[in-house]
Amino acid sequence: MEAQQQHSSIISRAVLELSDEASYQALFHSRRDEEALPSGETLKRIVDLCRAILFPGYYGSARINKQTIRYHLGVLVETLHGLLTKEIQAGLCFADASCESCGDQLTTEAAALSEQFIAALPQLRHMLATDAEATYNSDPAAQNLGEIIFCYPGFRAICNYRIAHQLDQLGVPYIPRIITELAHSETGIDIHPRARIGHHFSIDHGTGTVIGETSVIGNYVRIFQGVSLAGEKFPPDENGNAIRGVDRHPIVGDHVTIYSNATLLGHIHVGDGATIFGNVWLTHDVAAGESVYQRT
Amino acid sequence: MEAQQQHSSIISRAVLELSDEASYQALFHSRRDEEALPSGETLKRIVDLCRAILFPGYYGSARINKQTIRYHLGVLVETLHGLLTKEIQAGLCFADASCESCGDQLTTEAAALSEQFIAALPQLRHMLATDAEATYNSDPAAQNLGEIIFCYPGFRAICNYRIAHQLDQLGVPYIPRIITELAHSETGIDIHPRARIGHHFSIDHGTGTVIGETSVIGNYVRIFQGVSLAGEKFPPDENGNAIRGVDRHPIVGDHVTIYSNATLLGHIHVGDGATIFGNVWLTHDVAAGESVYQRT
Amino acid sequence: MEAQQQHSSIISRAVLELSDEASYQALFHSRRDEEALPSGETLKRIVDLCRAILFPGYYGSARINKQTIRYHLGVLVETLHGLLTKEIQAGLCFADASCESCGDQLTTEAAALSEQFIAALPQLRHMLATDAEATYNSDPAAQNLGEIIFCYPGFRAICNYRIAHQLDQLGVPYIPRIITELAHSETGIDIHPRARIGHHFSIDHGTGTVIGETSVIGNYVRIFQGVSLAGEKFPPDENGNAIRGVDRHPIVGDHVTIYSNATLLGHIHVGDGATIFGNVWLTHDVAAGESVYQRT
Amino acid sequence: MEAQQQHSSIISRAVLELSDEASYQALFHSRRDEEALPSGETLKRIVDLCRAILFPGYYGSARINKQTIRYHLGVLVETLHGLLTKEIQAGLCFADASCESCGDQLTTEAAALSEQFIAALPQLRHMLATDAEATYNSDPAAQNLGEIIFCYPGFRAICNYRIAHQLDQLGVPYIPRIITELAHSETGIDIHPRARIGHHFSIDHGTGTVIGETSVIGNYVRIFQGVSLAGEKFPPDENGNAIRGVDRHPIVGDHVTIYSNATLLGHIHVGDGATIFGNVWLTHDVAAGESVYQRT
Amino acid sequence: MEAQQQHSSIISRAVLELSDEASYQALFHSRRDEEALPSGETLKRIVDLCRAILFPGYYGSARINKQTIRYHLGVLVETLHGLLTKEIQAGLCFADASCESCGDQLTTEAAALSEQFIAALPQLRHMLATDAEATYNSDPAAQNLGEIIFCYPGFRAICNYRIAHQLDQLGVPYIPRIITELAHSETGIDIHPRARIGHHFSIDHGTGTVIGETSVIGNYVRIFQGVSLAGEKFPPDENGNAIRGVDRHPIVGDHVTIYSNATLLGHIHVGDGATIFGNVWLTHDVAAGESVYQRT
Amino acid sequence: MEAQQQHSSIISRAVLELSDEASYQALFHSRRDEEALPSGETLKRIVDLCRAILFPGYYGSARINKQTIRYHLGVLVETLHGLLTKEIQAGLCFADASCESCGDQLTTEAAALSEQFIAALPQLRHMLATDAEATYNSDPAAQNLGEIIFCYPGFRAICNYRIAHQLDQLGVPYIPRIITELAHSETGIDIHPRARIGHHFSIDHGTGTVIGETSVIGNYVRIFQGVSLAGEKFPPDENGNAIRGVDRHPIVGDHVTIYSNATLLGHIHVGDGATIFGNVWLTHDVAAGESVYQRT
Repeated sequence: MEAQQQHSSIISRAVLELSDEASYQALFHSRRDEEALPSGETLKRIVDLCRAILFPGYYGSARINKQTIRYHLGVLVETLHGLLTKEIQAGLCFADASCESCGDQLTTEAAALSEQFIAALPQLRHMLATDAEATYNSDPAAQNLGEIIFCYPGFRAICNYRIAHQLDQLGVPYIPRIITELAHSETGIDIHPRARIGHHFSIDHGTGTVIGETSVIGNYVRIFQGVSLAGEKFPPDENGNAIRGVDRHPIVGDHVTIYSNATLLGHIHVGDGATIFGNVWLTHDVAAGESVYQRT
Repeated sequence: MEAQQQHSSIISRAVLELSDEASYQALFHSRRDEEALPSGETLKRIVDLCRAILFPGYYGSARINKQTIRYHLGVLVETLHGLLTKEIQAGLCFADASCESCGDQLTTEAAALSEQFIAALPQLRHMLATDAEATYNSDPAAQNLGEIIFCYPGFRAICNYRIAHQLDQLGVPYIPRIITELAHSETGIDIHPRARIGHHFSIDHGTGTVIGETSVIGNYVRIFQGVSLAGEKFPPDENGNAIRGVDRHPIVGDHVTIYSNATLLGHIHVGDGATIFGNVWLTHDVAAGESVYQRT
Repeated sequence: MEAQQQHSSIISRAVLELSDEASYQALFHSRRDEEALPSGETLKRIVDLCRAILFPGYYGSARINKQTIRYHLGVLVETLHGLLTKEIQAGLCFADASCESCGDQLTTEAAALSEQFIAALPQLRHMLATDAEATYNSDPAAQNLGEIIFCYPGFRAICNYRIAHQLDQLGVPYIPRIITELAHSETGIDIHPRARIGHHFSIDHGTGTVIGETSVIGNYVRIFQGVSLAGEKFPPDENGNAIRGVDRHPIVGDHVTIYSNATLLGHIHVGDGATIFGNVWLTHDVAAGESVYQRT
Repeated sequence: MEAQQQHSSIISRAVLELSDEASYQALFHSRRDEEALPSGETLKRIVDLCRAILFPGYYGSARINKQTIRYHLGVLVETLHGLLTKEIQAGLCFADASCESCGDQLTTEAAALSEQFIAALPQLRHMLATDAEATYNSDPAAQNLGEIIFCYPGFRAICNYRIAHQLDQLGVPYIPRIITELAHSETGIDIHPRARIGHHFSIDHGTGTVIGETSVIGNYVRIFQGVSLAGEKFPPDENGNAIRGVDRHPIVGDHVTIYSNATLLGHIHVGDGATIFGNVWLTHDVAAGESVYQRT
Repeated sequence: MEAQQQHSSIISRAVLELSDEASYQALFHSRRDEEALPSGETLKRIVDLCRAILFPGYYGSARINKQTIRYHLGVLVETLHGLLTKEIQAGLCFADASCESCGDQLTTEAAALSEQFIAALPQLRHMLATDAEATYNSDPAAQNLGEIIFCYPGFRAICNYRIAHQLDQLGVPYIPRIITELAHSETGIDIHPRARIGHHFSIDHGTGTVIGETSVIGNYVRIFQGVSLAGEKFPPDENGNAIRGVDRHPIVGDHVTIYSNATLLGHIHVGDGATIFGNVWLTHDVAAGESVYQRT
Repeated sequence: MEAQQQHSSIISRAVLELSDEASYQALFHSRRDEEALPSGETLKRIVDLCRAILFPGYYGSARINKQTIRYHLGVLVETLHGLLTKEIQAGLCFADASCESCGDQLTTEAAALSEQFIAALPQLRHMLATDAEATYNSDPAAQNLGEIIFCYPGFRAICNYRIAHQLDQLGVPYIPRIITELAHSETGIDIHPRARIGHHFSIDHGTGTVIGETSVIGNYVRIFQGVSLAGEKFPPDENGNAIRGVDRHPIVGDHVTIYSNATLLGHIHVGDGATIFGNVWLTHDVAAGESVYQRT
C-alpha cells in the first residue's frame, strides 16, 4: 500500500518536472492544429512507389506487360502524387515556424512541387539506368542487371539520393534529408541530398560511405565502403555558430575510383581518372590520372 | 509417391537429429513457465515513448500545447512505466538462470527499477539538450535544432545510449545492451551502455563508430564516422577465457575532436583539446592540445 | 480549374513518357503470369524460423522443454520447408529468364533443394555453436552465451551467412544473396554467401566489415569492424565487361586476428596466427605468425 | 500462347465496357481532389474512444484511478475531437455534391460540430447509466453492471444509437447512419439515429430488432429480439418517389414491454404500461395498460 | 513440481487422445501438399474489389475521374482476376477429394472461370443499378443513391448474392456459399447463391431474412427483415439422408411485397402484385394481387 | 484566435465534468495494477485454436497427415493452454471485485481450469461430430461434411456454445458469455452458455435464434432461424431487482423440430418428437408427437 503511494508520488513528480516549461523549452516543437509531421513510414512508401514506377516489374505484385503498363503506371503515379503532396506540405510546415496557418495555399504549393517532381521521373529513370549499368560492368560478382536493381544496397542508396536530390533542387525542405537517411539506415551509405553526382555512378558494399553536402562528383566514378568525402571544419562565426553554405567538400573528376576506408577532407580537387587507394587520409589535390596510396 | 515418402523420411530424420539433446544442449535456453523473453519490438516502443516524453511535439500524433502537456506526459509516462516494468522483469529473469520462480517479488523489483528510471528522465532531457546544441553548433549543414532531433542518426544513437546507460547504472541486465543494439542496427553507431560520456557530445554521420565498454569521454567531444574507441586484447586467463571487467578502452578529455575512421586502441589518454585526424591507428597517449595525423 | 487541367496534363505526360518502351526497356523485368518475386519479408521469416530451430528456447513464444521439443521442431521444420520451397522456386524463376513456364517441375526441384537444406541443419547448428563459443571466449564484455545468441550483431550476421552459404552450395540462385543482404542491412556486416569460412569464427561490432566472394578464411579467425577482404580489380574483357568467377580475394589462415578498419586487397595469403592491426592497407602476403601495423 | 491472348482480350473488353460512361453513370461518385470518404474503420475507433471516455476502466489498456483519470480523459477527448472532426468533414462533403471545394471553411464547421458533440458527452453518459441500470434490473441472467457494459449486445447497440442520435441532432449527415449500421452489423439491432428514445431503455438479445426513423419511445421501455417498429408504406408521389419526412412509425409510451418477433406497423400509439406479446402483427392503437397476444 | 508434472501428463494425455485416428476420422480434412484452403480474408478482399469496380468512386482511396477511370479499372480488374483464380482453384480442390494433384490443369480451369466471371461484370453492374434504384424509390428514409450504395446492409447483401450467384452459375463450388455467408455474418441476411432473383430487388433492414436454395423471385420484389422463403422438409431417402436437388422453396411473382417476420414455406406460388403482411406463416399458394394477413 | 480559445474552454469543461467522480461512479471499473481485462481478440484466437484442434486439416496453414498430426496437436494444445490460462485469470479477476491481489495463486487456479478444459476436448470433439452429422442429414442443400464444418454458421455457433458451456461448467466466469457473444455477433445465434443441449443438435440459417439460460434441449433436435426459447418474466423481488437463478425457459424433448420465428416462452415442456411450426407464440406444454401451427 505504501509502496503504491510512493510509486504514485515518484511518477507524479517526474511528470511535474517534465511538464515544466523551463525543462522542455529548447526541445519543444509547438505544432499548429492541423499540422502533420513528416512521416518516415509514408516516405518509405513514397520511395517504394518511385521504385515501382522507375523499374516496372521488379516491385509490386501485379502482372505488368507492354499492354497494361500504362494502366499500372497511371495508378502508381497518381498515388505517388497524393502522398508526396502531403509529405511536402508537412515539410514546408515544419520548416516555417512563423507561418500562421497551414491552409489551402500551402496545399497548392505542395501539389505543384509534387507535380514538378513527377515531371522529372523520366529523366531520373535515365540516370539510374546508367548507374545500374556502371555497377554491373564493374562488379565481377554481379550475375545480371536484375540482381543489381533488386538486391544491391549501393544502387538502393543511389536511388534514394537521386530522388532526394531532385526534391532538394525544387526547394523542398527536410523531406530530402529524411529520404537519404532512410537509405543511410538501411545501407550504411550517407549521401547528402545536396551533393552533385554525375551519371554512371556506382558504390560497392558501401557501409560507412559518406558524401557531404557540397561534394561534386563527375561521371563514371566508383566508390567503395567506408569512403568519406568530408567537410573541412571552418572556425565558427563571432557568435560561436558554424558558418553554413560554404563549399567545404571535395570535387571529384570523371572516371575516378576511391577504395575502401579512404577519407578525402576539404575542398580539394581530384583529377579525372585518378585512383585513391584504401585507408588513405587525403587533404590535398590529386592530379588527373594520379594514384594515391597509404604508406606501409 | 516415392518422392513423397523420401521427403517425409528426410524431414523426419532432420527433426530427430535436431531434437537430440546432445545436439542442442549448448544452444538451448530452458525457459520457465511464465518467463517472457525481452522483446525487441517492445523495447523499440519504449525508446519511442521516451523520445515522445523528452522532446514533446516531435513525436506522437496528438496536439500538445502548454495547457495540455501535463495530460499527455501523464499518460505517456504511465504507459512507459508499465512496459518498462515488464521488459526489466524479462531481463532479470533471463539473467538469473538459477532462480526458481518469476513471481511477484521479481515484479516488485522490476517496478521499482522502472520508477527510478522515470525519476531520472528530467536529468536525461537536460543532457540531451546539450548534445542537440553541440550537434547544431558544429554542423554547417544543419538548418535548426528540429532537424537534429527529428532526423540525425548521431543524435538518435546518443539518445538510445543515454537511456541505456541510465538503465545500466541501475543494474538492469541485458535490456541496456538491446537498446544500444537497436540504435546500432538503425545507425551503424555502436556505443556500449557502460561507457561514460560527458555533456555536449556529438557524432556526425557515425556509421561504423564504436565506443567500447570501459571508454571514458569528456565534455564537448565531437566524433565522426568509422571511429573506434577499441579495447586492448589481454591474454586469456588460465582457463582460456577472456578476463572481464578490466579497463581496456581509451580515456578522452574535454573538447576533443576525432575524425573519420581513426582507431584508438587500449587504455590510452587523449588530453583536453586534442585533435585526432582521420584514418589514424593510435595506441599511445596524446597530450592536451596535440594533433595526430596519418603519415602520407 | 485551369490549375487542375494543367495538373492533369503534367501527370499524363509523365505517365506517357514512363510507359514508352524505349524508356523502361533496360530496367524492366518481364514476369510470367504465375511468377512470384523473391520476398524479403518471407526470407526474414525463414531466417527467424532457422534461428528458432537452431537455438531452441531463444525465439518463439511457446514453452519448450525436453519432452515437447520434438513437437515444436516438427512443426517449425515443416513450416520452414513450405516457405523455403516457395522462395527457392521464386529464385529459380527469377534467374532463368528464358524458361517457358514456372510449373510443377520447378516446384519439385525447389522442394528437393529445400529438403537438402533441412538435412544440413544439424551440421549448421554444430558450426554455429563453435562460432558462439569463439565469440564468448574472445569478448570480455560478453556475460554469457545467451547474450551472444540473443543480442550480438556479429553472431547474427554469421548465422545469416552460414544459412546463405549452405543454399549457395546447393546451387540456389539469388536467395542466398538476399539473405546476407538482410544481415548487411541490420548489422552493417557484408559477407558474400560464396565466401568459405572455417569454424570458431567471430566478428566483433562489425559495422562496415566486408568479406568478398572468393575469400577463404580458416578456423579460429577473429575480425573487427570496418575490415575489408576486398577483391582485386582486373582489367575488363574485350567487351568492356568485368571478368567473373576469378579468385581475387584474400586467403586467411587459422588463428588470425584482423583489427578494425584494415583493408586486405587481392588474392594475397595471410599465414596462420598472423595479426593485422587496425587501419592497415595490405596488398601483399603475410607470413605465419607475423604482425602488420600502420606506420605512424 | 493463344489462351494467353484470349485472356487479355476478355479482360480488356470487360475493362472497356466497365469504363464506358453510360455503364457507370448512375453508380459513380465523383470525388473532389481532397475529398476523403467517411471511413468505417475510423468511425469504429471513434465509437471505441467514446466508450473509453464514458465507461472509464472498461476499455483501453492504461491504469486509471481517481488521481490520473483527468489525464487519461484529457488525452482521449482530444484524440476523439481530432478524428471526429475529420469524419464529420467527410460526411458534409459526401452530402453536398454541389459544393466547390472542401477547404478551410468546411474544416471549421466540422470542428465546431465535433466540439458540440463533446460538450454533450456528460449528458450522454448520464443517459447510458440509466440504460445499464434498466438492463441489469430486468435480466435475471446478468451478474452485475460490469457484465452489461462489457458484454451485452443490446447495451452496445443503444450506446451506438445514443452517440449517433446526438450527431444527427447536430445536423451531421451520413455519419450517424454509419455508426448505427456498425452496431447493426455487430448485434443485428437496427435503430435509426433519428428515432427518439427515453431513458432507462433496454433491449434483450436483440437480433433482428428494428426501430424506424420516426419512432418515438418513452422511458422504462423494454424490447426483445426480432421486434419491428416499422414504417407504414405511403403511396409514392406523382414522380413515383417515396415521400420523405412523414411520421410513419409507432409512438410507444412509458413502461411498455414488447416481446420477441412482434411487429408494430405504422403511426400507431401504444399507451403507458402496455405489453405486446411475441409474434404479434399490430397495426392499431393499444390502450394504456393493455396486453396484446397472438391468437393461438 | 508435482503440479508441473501432473500438468504435463494431463496435457499429454489429451494430445494422445486427440491424435487417435478413431477420434478425428470423421472430422479430418486430409489436404494434399500444395492445396490451399479457400480463405475468408481473401474472399472479403475479392468482394471489396468487385464493389470498387462496380461503383467507381465509392471505394478505394485513389482519385478517379473520367480521364483516369480506365487506368484504375484496368488495375483493379487484373488484381481481381489473380485473386479470384486462386480462390476458385482452392474451391475446386476442396470439392474434389479424389483428385490426385492440384497442378497446372486446375490452375488453367480456375483462370478460365475467373475470366468468365469478369466478362459478366458489366451485366452485374446493370442489375445492381436496378436494385439500388428500387431501394431508393421505396425507402422514405434514404437521402440519395450514394447512401444506399455506401451504407445499406440490404443492398450490400444483394451485391454479395449477385456475385455469388454468377460464380455458382459458372459451376464454381464452395466459393459462392462463403461469399453469401460473409454477407450473412455482416448483415444477418442469408440468400442462397443458387436462388434466382429478378431485377429491381430490394431488402429493407433485412436481419433474419432467409432466401433458400430453390427459391425463385420475380422483378420489383421488396422484402423486409425476418422474412423466410423456407424449404419444405421431405422424408429422407431409404438410407436416412436428405434428398438433395428437389425444388422445395417458394416461387414469388413480380411486384410482390413481403413484410417483416413472415415465413413462406415450401414450393408455393405467390402471384404477381401480391402482398404478404408481417408475422404470417404461409404454406399455400397466393393469387395475383391478393393480400395475406395474420389473424389478430 | 478567439475560436481557438473557445474551443479549448469547451473541451476543457467537458473533460472536467467527465472527470467528476459523481459523473462516472456508476460506470467506472477500478482496475488493480496488474489486472488485464478479458480480451475479445484473444478469445477469438482461442476459439480458432479449438477449431484447429478439433477439426484437423480444416484450419491452420500447415500440412497435417497421420504421421505429423501429433506434432501439430502438441503445439496447438500448448498454445491454447497458455492463452486460455491468461483469459481465465482475467475473468476471475474481473468477477471478484474484492480480491486484494491478482497474484500467483490466481494464476495457479486459472492454469488448473485451463487444463481441465483441455482434458475435455476429446469428448467435445465427439459431441460436435454428432452435430455435424445431424446438420448434414437434415439439410438437402449441404454437399458434404466439409462444407458444414467450414461454412455453416449454425454449426459455428454450436461449436462456440459447446466450448463456452464446458468452461461454464468448470465455474469460469464471464469468459463463456464472451465466447457465445462472439458467435452471436458473427451468426446472429444467441445461445446462453448455461443452457443444456443434447447430442445431434442442428440449427439452420439461425439468425435471430435465442436459447435462454435455463433452457434444456434433448437429442436430435433441429431449430431454424428466429426461434426463441425465452424466459418467463417473474415479478421483481422486494428491492425491485430481477430474481436470478430460477428455471424460467422451455424444456424440449428428443427429436423435436422448431420452425422459423417461433417463440416458446417460459418453463413449458415440449414432448419428444413434437413439431412446432413457424411464427407460433407458444406458452403452454406440448405433448409428445404433437404439432403446433399458427392459425391462419
